[in-house]
Parts: sequence; C-alpha cells; structure tokens
Amino acid sequence: MGKQQRIKAALLGLGTVGAGVVKTLMQNGTLIKERTGYEIEIPYILVRNPLKQRAVSVSRETIVTNPETFLTDGEVSLVIEVMGGVEPAREIILRSLQAGKHVVTANKELLAKHGAELFKAAHDSGVQLLFEASVAGGIPVIRTLQGYMTANRVHEITGILNGTSNYILTQMERDGLSFAEALRQAQQLGYAEADPASDVEGYDTAYKLAILTNLAHDINLPIEQMTVRGISRIDLQDLQSARQFGYVIKLLGRSRQTGNGISFTVGPHLLPLSHPLAEIHDAFNAVTISGDVVGDLTLIGKGAGEFPTASAVVEDVTALLRHTGHVLRQPVWDEAGTDHRSDSVTKTHYLRLQSSTQEHDFVDRLIARIAENNGAEILHKKRIVNQTQAIMSYIIQGLSMEQMEHSITEMRQENPVFETKGVLPVWEAADHPETNTPHDGLQPYEAAVG
Amino acid sequence: MGKQQRIKAALLGLGTVGAGVVKTLMQNGTLIKERTGYEIEIPYILVRNPLKQRAVSVSRETIVTNPETFLTDGEVSLVIEVMGGVEPAREIILRSLQAGKHVVTANKELLAKHGAELFKAAHDSGVQLLFEASVAGGIPVIRTLQGYMTANRVHEITGILNGTSNYILTQMERDGLSFAEALRQAQQLGYAEADPASDVEGYDTAYKLAILTNLAHDINLPIEQMTVRGISRIDLQDLQSARQFGYVIKLLGRSRQTGNGISFTVGPHLLPLSHPLAEIHDAFNAVTISGDVVGDLTLIGKGAGEFPTASAVVEDVTALLRHTGHVLRQPVWDEAGTDHRSDSVTKTHYLRLQSSTQEHDFVDRLIARIAENNGAEILHKKRIVNQTQAIMSYIIQGLSMEQMEHSITEMRQENPVFETKGVLPVWEAADHPETNTPHDGLQPYEAAVG
Repeated sequence: MGKQQRIKAALLGLGTVGAGVVKTLMQNGTLIKERTGYEIEIPYILVRNPLKQRAVSVSRETIVTNPETFLTDGEVSLVIEVMGGVEPAREIILRSLQAGKHVVTANKELLAKHGAELFKAAHDSGVQLLFEASVAGGIPVIRTLQGYMTANRVHEITGILNGTSNYILTQMERDGLSFAEALRQAQQLGYAEADPASDVEGYDTAYKLAILTNLAHDINLPIEQMTVRGISRIDLQDLQSARQFGYVIKLLGRSRQTGNGISFTVGPHLLPLSHPLAEIHDAFNAVTISGDVVGDLTLIGKGAGEFPTASAVVEDVTALLRHTGHVLRQPVWDEAGTDHRSDSVTKTHYLRLQSSTQEHDFVDRLIARIAENNGAEILHKKRIVNQTQAIMSYIIQGLSMEQMEHSITEMRQENPVFETKGVLPVWEAADHPETNTPHDGLQPYEAAVG
Repeated sequence: MGKQQRIKAALLGLGTVGAGVVKTLMQNGTLIKERTGYEIEIPYILVRNPLKQRAVSVSRETIVTNPETFLTDGEVSLVIEVMGGVEPAREIILRSLQAGKHVVTANKELLAKHGAELFKAAHDSGVQLLFEASVAGGIPVIRTLQGYMTANRVHEITGILNGTSNYILTQMERDGLSFAEALRQAQQLGYAEADPASDVEGYDTAYKLAILTNLAHDINLPIEQMTVRGISRIDLQDLQSARQFGYVIKLLGRSRQTGNGISFTVGPHLLPLSHPLAEIHDAFNAVTISGDVVGDLTLIGKGAGEFPTASAVVEDVTALLRHTGHVLRQPVWDEAGTDHRSDSVTKTHYLRLQSSTQEHDFVDRLIARIAENNGAEILHKKRIVNQTQAIMSYIIQGLSMEQMEHSITEMRQENPVFETKGVLPVWEAADHPETNTPHDGLQPYEAAVG
C-alpha cells in the first residue's frame, strides 16, 4: 500500500452488500483509521443502472458505468467486487490485478469457476486477491483455512453453507410447512431470490465447498463434474421420519481426504441430532474443519445478509491495510490436482417409498430382501398407512448410494408395487486420525536413564 | 525473520504441550517448510529437571537448564514458552523480547497479569509476541479478535473457557454425579490437575476472559479486582432444577460493552437451552463474539490437551514465518483504561433454599414477598420435600445479584427458618444493536430523482 495514509478504492456493485460496505465504512471509518492508520476513500462506484434508487446515500459524482474510469486511474490501488456473476466481474478483476490493484471479492461462483486463473494473475502482478466474503458471510472460515491452518493437514470439511436452504428446512420442520410454502415465506422475508435455483438446488453450496476444499488441499475441484443435489424434493414426511429416527435433514457440503484422494459431496443429508451442526437453525451458516493436529474446529455465524457479508469484505480491506507483505498463504489451486471424486462415501441411507394400502407388507419384505442379499442392515423403519396409500421410511446401513439405487430399481422392475419417493445419505463420522502419532525420527533423549 | 531459510527457536518447557509442539514439528515439518519456506530447528529446550522422563524423544544435547544459553545466542530469533506460571516465565520472555527475539507463548496467567508490560517490550524492540494458545487451545479466537475484527466494534464476548469445569458439569448432569465424584473422574482421566483450584474456582476462566476483553477493547482489566466464582458449590440439584426450568449450568466468562464502560463476570450461569453455548459438552471450549457489523460469531473446539494447544503454538510460529510485517493488530492494553466493572448486569437469578419439612410453605410466602416488595417476578419454582427437609428452587426476574443477596439476608435475619444454598445468575441477552444503522454524512445520491 506504500506510505500513503489514504487509500483509494473502486467499489463494483451497489446492491445489498455494496450498500452494507458503504454504510460500514461510514459508521466505523474512524475506528478503521485508528487501527490501521488508513482512511478509505471510494471515488468510483461501478453500477449497471445509474438511475436505480439505492439503499444508501452516496455522492453522485462517484457513480460510474464504465470500468475504464478506475482501471486507468493509477491512484486507485484497491478494487472491491460485490456485483456477483461471472462476467463482467471476471474480466474487470483480471484487468484490475494486471494493473497492479489489490482485489477483494465476495464472488463465490467466479472463484469456484475461475479461481486458479485469477490467483495466478494476482501472483504474477505481486498483488493480493482476498475473498473472505465469498464463503459463509461474516464467518472467518477462509482466514482459518488460509491464514491459520498451515501446520495442520485438513482431513475433512463439513458445512451448512447456504442460509436460504437452512432457513427453509428449519421452517418446514418447525411449522410443518411444505417446501413450496417455506420457500414462499423465505422469499417474502428477502432470504431467497426471485429465482432461488442456485440456493435450493445446491449450486451455491457447491461453489463454496469447492473454494474451501481447494484452499485446504491446494487442488482445483472441477465444479462442473460435481454431483449436486438440492432440497426441492424434500418432503415434510422425510423431516418427520428423520426426527423420529434421531436425525435432522441439512443441506451439507462435505469434502474428505480419503486413501485415494479427495471425495466431495453436496446434498441433503440426515445428520445425527448429537452432531454440532444439527443445532444450526434458520439462516445461520456453520463449518466444521478437522485438522490432524487441532482436531475439530466449528465456526458458526450469519452466512448472508447486508452486514455480515459487508463485514467480511471490509475486514479483508483492513487486513490489506495492516500488512505490507502477504496477508494469507498464497493459494495454489493446482490445475492438475490430486484424484478427486464426487462421492459421499457414506454406506448408510434413508429411503422413502410409497405403495397402495394393500401391498405395504409385501413391499416391506422386498426391502428386507434387498438388505439381506447385500449383507446390509435395516437400522430403523416406520410405516404410515392411511385410506389411500402407505408411506414407508427406512434407514439402511451397508450399501453405497449407487448400490442402493441399483437394487431398488431392479426390485421395482420385477415388482412394480411401490414408488421410490426419496433416497438420502446419512452422515457418518469419517475414519481419520484425530491427532498425531509420535514420531521417533530424532535421537532419543536418554537423560532419564543415562 | 530475515532471509534465512532456517529458523532457530528455543522451547521453554517440555511438559504435555511442549511434547506436543515437538511431535507436531516432527510430523508436519515438511508441510510447514513447503508452505512457509522455513525449516524450524530447536537447538535449545529449557527444562527445570533434565533427569525427568519425557513424553517425546529429543536430542540429548538440546536440553538446557540455564536461559542464558539461548538468550546470548544471536542465531536464536524465536522463543516458544510453554512452561506456565508467572516467574521465571515473565523474566525470560521480557529478556528475550529485549534481545530482539520473537516470542510465542501459551501462558494465560502471565498475559492476564503482565500483558501490558510484555507488549510494550515487544513494541519497543520491534518484535512480536503471539499468544493464540493462551486462550481456548486450538480455537483461533485470538486471531479472530486481533487479526479479523478490525472494522468491528465488539459488543460482547461470552465463553466456556475452561474444559475441566465443563467436563465436570457435563458428567454431573449426564451421570448424576456429585461435584467431588466428577472431579475425581476428571483427575483420573488427566483432565484435571492434582490441585484443581485454578480450573474449578474460575481463575483460569478469568485470565482468559481478561485477555480476550483487553484485546477487544484496548483496555487492561485489573485481574485482581475481578469477582470470580467457581463451580465447587454447584449441587446436582441445581443442575436438575435448572434443566426442568429450561436451562443448563455453565461456567461462563462474559464481558460486555455497556453505556458506562465494560462490565465483566466470571462464574456459573444458568444458560437457556436454546443458547448456542448450551450444547457445548465435555472438555470442549466455545466463545461467542458479538460485533456491531458481523453479528454473533461462535467458535467451538478442543480447549486444552497436548495437540490442540500445540497446534495453536505452532500456528503462531507459522504466522511469524509467513509474514515479514506484523501478523496481527498491535495490542494496546491501556493501563488507564475505560471504566470497567466486575458486574454480571443480569437481573434474573436462580435461587436454592432449604428448610424443614414443616416450614416450606412459609418460606415460599417469604420469597413471594421479596419479589413483590422489589417489583420482581418469580418465573419458575420447584419444591422437593422429603422426610427430613424441603428444597426450594426459584428463578426470579427483576433483581440484581446485590439486591437479591441483600433481600434474602434481611429476610433470613427476621425469619431464620431457611438456609440459602445457592444464588446463580441467569444469562440474559444483552441489549445492544445487532447491526449498523445508516448514516447520512455524505451527500445523497439523487440520480433516481434527478
């Protein structure tokens, strides 16, 4: 940042988060100056539509629609991107980095898809690209992985990373709403977008999981090859059965170090009620990171919204102001990468079936036969029979998702007496060492016996 | 750290944490070198008794008993202190800092009592004093306060900071043990020291709360003026009554920004079952930090033990290696300070009384009269009468701890028919703003109407 006591930044986007950034700088600007020595000035705010009414009052002459204005201004040393989407954000960030400007971004989709290219550009120009706000809002999970866990090998990351989906699942379970009703409520409260697909179909979670996993393992997960499941087909009956079996349904992103590489999965899971993430309700986010030395760390906070996200953006800016060197470990998102598989690894699954009221005993015997034929075990089962149909739920241990789906399909072809309404993985503790094992590479210290 | 690719460190102490540090450096030394560029060498390990058997094998010639050995060695640029206690740790750290060596310490008592002096010495010598391991083991709570929350004003810190006490309370409630039985079990498992006073009487929590509060508010809490309460007088009946009323009892450290300054309290509290910290069991630690922009952040992990603490120590070392400038915001522990009071602020309390089997109705009327006279309200009450005595529990809202104790004492002097067995504060949400309010200091942006 040189020796200047004032830094000029361009802000890209003045939506919810952009307005939060402006308000935070107004309200806590004096505090930031006291603690970093710098005053932050924003002479450029890039917007698409300069006529749109904004949630914050800003000086009229700062509003621009052409990125050339700040790209060519050598006094602007920092670009804050909160506009979202891949283009034109990608191109403007790339050109900013190439022009020697630091960049702070909240853009998860862009980083998940083009992170490697952007980090390389930052590295080549000797500037920094910070992105705390891209995952889990105000929760310092990027800091923890990139700035803290350097002497730790990460075994596993499990997160509730989408507040909208978590809000919907919480409302469904708490108030007995259908998915559609809970979604409508989330939209009315401003928690869900008019087009909620990215949130409820799991893409948002997949982007965030990719960023965390890439950081933890220095790889570059192929986001387009990820199997991503969402919550739109979760039925209230699934939540109720899960609860009776001792579980809650959460949309999880999870990646694990396995013997062969990294496995990763995004989708709704049954999580045991005793798991720390089972208690994360409403629009909160939470991430559990397991390291080989530190054990399990869980971080909980607001994962979205104007101020939590603005906090992460502005704290990236204060980190830049406080440091002359590199704030965080340089990300190495290797294009080649380790072997990584989109695979949940779990061998326990929840299954919901529907049949006529006459045939549920027969269907129950079919499921018992599937379990028996595969050496699997039925841990829980439940049956609700009303006047028109029978609903059966099971938790079956000992079959992979593929085996499960294959066996069910086969059985149904022979005996078309039931419909499969849902198959969900059940979260299982991973089989990895919790702590170090002693190592005897050095000469033994023998004073006690010598 | 200069341009050397190898750094020489002195390790003070080779107990549980010291052995964990040595094992971590052995096991993950290659990882650390890959990620920081530095190899860490430990040519000096200071111990009191060189004949004692150690939990790790180290080279015999590294063991020293005289600090002059490394204090006078100009090649040693880092001192790692994990010996504990105030002296001689204070003097050795002070001389190390004065000699231009960076220091990483896990010593909470030392920092709580002499932090201001040590930070000044570090500042004067242009070196760093890092202390992540001093609070909550492997949980990056110092990083979060000192390295992350720069643009945030901290409203409140609430933590379960002592794993031993939390383990004891968990065992009492889960298995119906008395305090003494649960303590004995904790000692057998190595969770509690032979002399458990610092853990169970709240001093350890007080040291850690002081460090967090000083960091958050740039003050210097007078540790000797803190009112500190422990858990040794908690009865199984208190835990059972609390549970029936919808609470769990936790040893909390809590500090809050109030209108007048900072208030702080250390002691057992009744915490609502819905509070995120209510689910923290066994030897886990957890801290909730409330910031004006980010909202509530909760961090959970293992707060003690060989590897979690070693992780925090070694990650401070990796932070030093990665940065040429200052890793974290310079602590300013102002000697003068704001007004700060040892005060729980809460107006809701739990009360347990004992009387003869004949007089419990009369006692119940006395308590009702206390509430009425003070405009307070009895939220919950419970009575257990057996053949020899009656036990009455209440939750009363509307009286400070002082008013409560005063009224009860006065009532008992007039009517000596009951004994006070316990008064505990009930955790209440603080009355502080969750988010920013908009500020209109800048010219309004009027494009929408212009």
